[in-house]
Amino acid sequence: MELTVYLAGQIHDDWRGDVRTKAKEKNLPLTFVGPQENHGRSDDIGEAILGEQPGKLYKDDAASSINNFRTEVLMQKSDVVIALFGENYKQWNTAMDASAAMQMNKPTIVVRPESLIHPLKELSNKANVTVETIDQALDVLAYIYE
Amino acid sequence: MELTVYLAGQIHDDWRGDVRTKAKEKNLPLTFVGPQENHGRSDDIGEAILGEQPGKLYKDDAASSINNFRTEVLMQKSDVVIALFGENYKQWNTAMDASAAMQMNKPTIVVRPESLIHPLKELSNKANVTVETIDQALDVLAYIYE
Amino acid sequence: MELTVYLAGQIHDDWRGDVRTKAKEKNLPLTFVGPQENHGRSDDIGEAILGEQPGKLYKDDAASSINNFRTEVLMQKSDVVIALFGENYKQWNTAMDASAAMQMNKPTIVVRPESLIHPLKELSNKANVTVETIDQALDVLAYIYE
Amino acid sequence: MELTVYLAGQIHDDWRGDVRTKAKEKNLPLTFVGPQENHGRSDDIGEAILGEQPGKLYKDDAASSINNFRTEVLMQKSDVVIALFGENYKQWNTAMDASAAMQMNKPTIVVRPESLIHPLKELSNKANVTVETIDQALDVLAYIYE
Amino acid sequence: MELTVYLAGQIHDDWRGDVRTKAKEKNLPLTFVGPQENHGRSDDIGEAILGEQPGKLYKDDAASSINNFRTEVLMQKSDVVIALFGENYKQWNTAMDASAAMQMNKPTIVVRPESLIHPLKELSNKANVTVETIDQALDVLAYIYE
Amino acid sequence: MELTVYLAGQIHDDWRGDVRTKAKEKNLPLTFVGPQENHGRSDDIGEAILGEQPGKLYKDDAASSINNFRTEVLMQKSDVVIALFGENYKQWNTAMDASAAMQMNKPTIVVRPESLIHPLKELSNKANVTVETIDQALDVLAYIYE
Amino acid sequence: MELTVYLAGQIHDDWRGDVRTKAKEKNLPLTFVGPQENHGRSDDIGEAILGEQPGKLYKDDAASSINNFRTEVLMQKSDVVIALFGENYKQWNTAMDASAAMQMNKPTIVVRPESLIHPLKELSNKANVTVETIDQALDVLAYIYE
Amino acid sequence: MELTVYLAGQIHDDWRGDVRTKAKEKNLPLTFVGPQENHGRSDDIGEAILGEQPGKLYKDDAASSINNFRTEVLMQKSDVVIALFGENYKQWNTAMDASAAMQMNKPTIVVRPESLIHPLKELSNKANVTVETIDQALDVLAYIYE
Repeated sequence: MELTVYLAGQIHDDWRGDVRTKAKEKNLPLTFVGPQENHGRSDDIGEAILGEQPGKLYKDDAASSINNFRTEVLMQKSDVVIALFGENYKQWNTAMDASAAMQMNKPTIVVRPESLIHPLKELSNKANVTVETIDQALDVLAYIYE
Repeated sequence: MELTVYLAGQIHDDWRGDVRTKAKEKNLPLTFVGPQENHGRSDDIGEAILGEQPGKLYKDDAASSINNFRTEVLMQKSDVVIALFGENYKQWNTAMDASAAMQMNKPTIVVRPESLIHPLKELSNKANVTVETIDQALDVLAYIYE
Repeated sequence: MELTVYLAGQIHDDWRGDVRTKAKEKNLPLTFVGPQENHGRSDDIGEAILGEQPGKLYKDDAASSINNFRTEVLMQKSDVVIALFGENYKQWNTAMDASAAMQMNKPTIVVRPESLIHPLKELSNKANVTVETIDQALDVLAYIYE
Repeated sequence: MELTVYLAGQIHDDWRGDVRTKAKEKNLPLTFVGPQENHGRSDDIGEAILGEQPGKLYKDDAASSINNFRTEVLMQKSDVVIALFGENYKQWNTAMDASAAMQMNKPTIVVRPESLIHPLKELSNKANVTVETIDQALDVLAYIYE
Repeated sequence: MELTVYLAGQIHDDWRGDVRTKAKEKNLPLTFVGPQENHGRSDDIGEAILGEQPGKLYKDDAASSINNFRTEVLMQKSDVVIALFGENYKQWNTAMDASAAMQMNKPTIVVRPESLIHPLKELSNKANVTVETIDQALDVLAYIYE
Repeated sequence: MELTVYLAGQIHDDWRGDVRTKAKEKNLPLTFVGPQENHGRSDDIGEAILGEQPGKLYKDDAASSINNFRTEVLMQKSDVVIALFGENYKQWNTAMDASAAMQMNKPTIVVRPESLIHPLKELSNKANVTVETIDQALDVLAYIYE
Repeated sequence: MELTVYLAGQIHDDWRGDVRTKAKEKNLPLTFVGPQENHGRSDDIGEAILGEQPGKLYKDDAASSINNFRTEVLMQKSDVVIALFGENYKQWNTAMDASAAMQMNKPTIVVRPESLIHPLKELSNKANVTVETIDQALDVLAYIYE
Repeated sequence: MELTVYLAGQIHDDWRGDVRTKAKEKNLPLTFVGPQENHGRSDDIGEAILGEQPGKLYKDDAASSINNFRTEVLMQKSDVVIALFGENYKQWNTAMDASAAMQMNKPTIVVRPESLIHPLKELSNKANVTVETIDQALDVLAYIYE
């Protein structure tokens, strides 16, 4: 049984590449999807498609409408969501995506470091599973196939 | 027509009192509900009811299960959600509640300062309305009754 | 049994006053809600609350976010929707509201003049009932109480 | 990941052919579906299948029941909806289809010329993305695959 | 706890009056709603509101659109549905209403005489409860209040 | 685009074979599913699997639980429902299946002879399309592929 | 804000009376509903209404259809569910009701003694809150009103 | 038509192997999924992935979050659920899974021995079909393909 997994989280480093590599090593029949991973491209996509906007608010709103569209399409096609939080960045997108996924009844794994236990406690409690590392998240996915 | 409004957001200062006062001044037929506003009580509620837990993770998980229960009950009874973001704190709860509300088709107003336009751009775009102040949020609610 | 009725349609004349008067004459226990009926106010509400915007597109987007918020709140509280079309104006809002109502399983009456039979044929077919006059729409509502 | 895209909008010119050609040039794995594009056939399909009807209203109602059936089947099979508005025709079908799609949580792109910003402002605000040209709509779809 | 009960079934005799009287005798806090009980009025309501139609098919379609509208409004307001079948008439409306109610998760009681066990076996099996008499149906409702 | 079509209706003659043959002649990419077509087998399936029951009511209830299970599984897998009514038999199953399908938003075609216009008027009005013959129903399905 | 609470669990002793008394002492604005608490009445209700059945299976099926009907009506009217497990009895009803409640998004509190931690671990994990005593469950409800 | 079947029930013996073998003998195009069948692995999975927990409650909660995740993923992919009860073990998981499946409108077969008729009467009544043996459950599935 093939599953599609949406990878929600920051796009400042290549943690998704790490997930993909490790899933391949474990021979898991998973397809990974997620947001635009090129940060500049993600921020600029609104003006890139719609043209110059009259200020930062409008540039951001244009970009976010297209980023949200992409997320909506891909999350609806997904069977499972992994939402990764790290120690940097605001990551409200990640919280938004994780919460939307849970409300849509998409089984959701939250990955967060020990240092974030307290501020993420309500989100962790609401998630199906909370782990600390990508390896653990993949162990949870691998468990489906045992 | 009376409406019930859930006030999502941080619980470190009395912004909800401000909302209540201003709604009263405008004679709006609104009932406000929200999370536990006593921060210590919110953090300790798990151990207060369930007894001592074996560490911070477990204390936090116990507290958050009860806080999430309260939020779930009250948000289901609400017609509208206001989610306020400020410049301090992680506020992942706020993002989680706002996103859950939108996914449940609860009409949602995001309140955030200009300084947070960029990190909240996807959440703002997904919300029904985004404003910068509590006064503006109440203006939006008052507009329903014009 | 009291029912709440959302009145979707143009806001250039006082057809809703006509509906309200006639419902009163028939002693029907109906509460009517609907969009902002002051056209200028409806167009300007975005800038009135959010401040000046950098052009017509942005002014319109700001206004529509608040108008849509109002519609969403009130339509969710409604038991029935009446959508009136006339010979003037684009009325895409009316079509949008009527279609959203039908998709939400709100029983919907379309009112349209004979001259609009052809362009409204798919919407009429999808509506629960299609009539030509406000009097007929009220006859349909009165029939619930016979 | 293959996606099915419903193309809502007028059927008086071959804009859908344009969409198909451009998607092919970009090698996007998209399947396009939509309404009957032969305008005469669309208007006459009721009598063509059900036999002569006693007047225009009945001819139109018969045709629209079959057109709505087709739309319903194909839209349910679609992952994304593009709704194109132009400067001619009433296009209430387009507004109806776009609104139904959004209510069904189908991610929706509205395409409309600058001249229609004002009358389409509520629909644009409710859509996931609003653009002005078919090329921009395809850029948005292509962005999903970056 | 007050409950609203939709009474689906034929409108050729006053079985609903019987239900109302017996519920009153048992002091049950029930409000009963249902279709138009005047058979002629029900058949003629389309032409009464919309004017003469060009034949039986069109007269019937006009009437049924208004009858279905009434049913839809009242069934959505109901907590429970009783669907009564007797030995006469086609009663496809009754089967339609009972099935729609069950699909909407409205708890449904089917009342049918012993002679109809076989032809109604799939509908009875799908209903929450099947009984043979109005008295038994009221006993089931009274049991909620014990 | 392949579609699965559930064929609801009586099982006393081979009308489904007729549908299958005609669909093949038109080269329509349709898969047809439906209830058990062997009438004796359908009536006896409860006792065949569960053993002898203590009377007709119990035999019928056992059979119908298995028939309803089959219908539920296959209707959920279907994209479209055709519900055929003829002049004989009670056909409450057909009305139940058609109504359940419509409530599940399965696009539904009702096929019924002219003689049944009146007793089926509410069901016809609620269906997406009503026709009189199998050929017309297939014309409607073929229209999706034009 | 008044809340209705469904009390799922065994009916062999008067634990619900205990809940009601304690809620009253705390002045909580709660209305409690639940299953028939007279065990003999609950087991016999099928034959009491429908007449003698041909064996235990049929007697039980008749009773359970009426008990399930009552549960369905009252649970749909409830805002919150408390499901209590004790050390005796099979209590599959309780597990069924708790699970149905959670699937319906009714916020649910599981009450179970320490001795049942292991066999109820999946149900506890899925519940919003798990506690060990009725007092704790009421503390959770009281917390909503703080 | 291929179907995926979730096998809910205890994991102390190899009854699922029996189901798989018999389905193969009957050449049924079924794919079976279910919980982790290695009992020790199922109990230990929480600590295996998340590390040692501070006591039985926490070990069980960790394990159950991962077991529930697996169940949620696989049940959403299933078309049908078989829930088997035997005379040993608490089996509250089985009742939870069966009830969740029914609430999700997954057609569900309950398998239980005659000795459990009484304690499972409400669950059996709510299930689509109740049988006593695995062979009967497979007969019900085979009937879909007749």
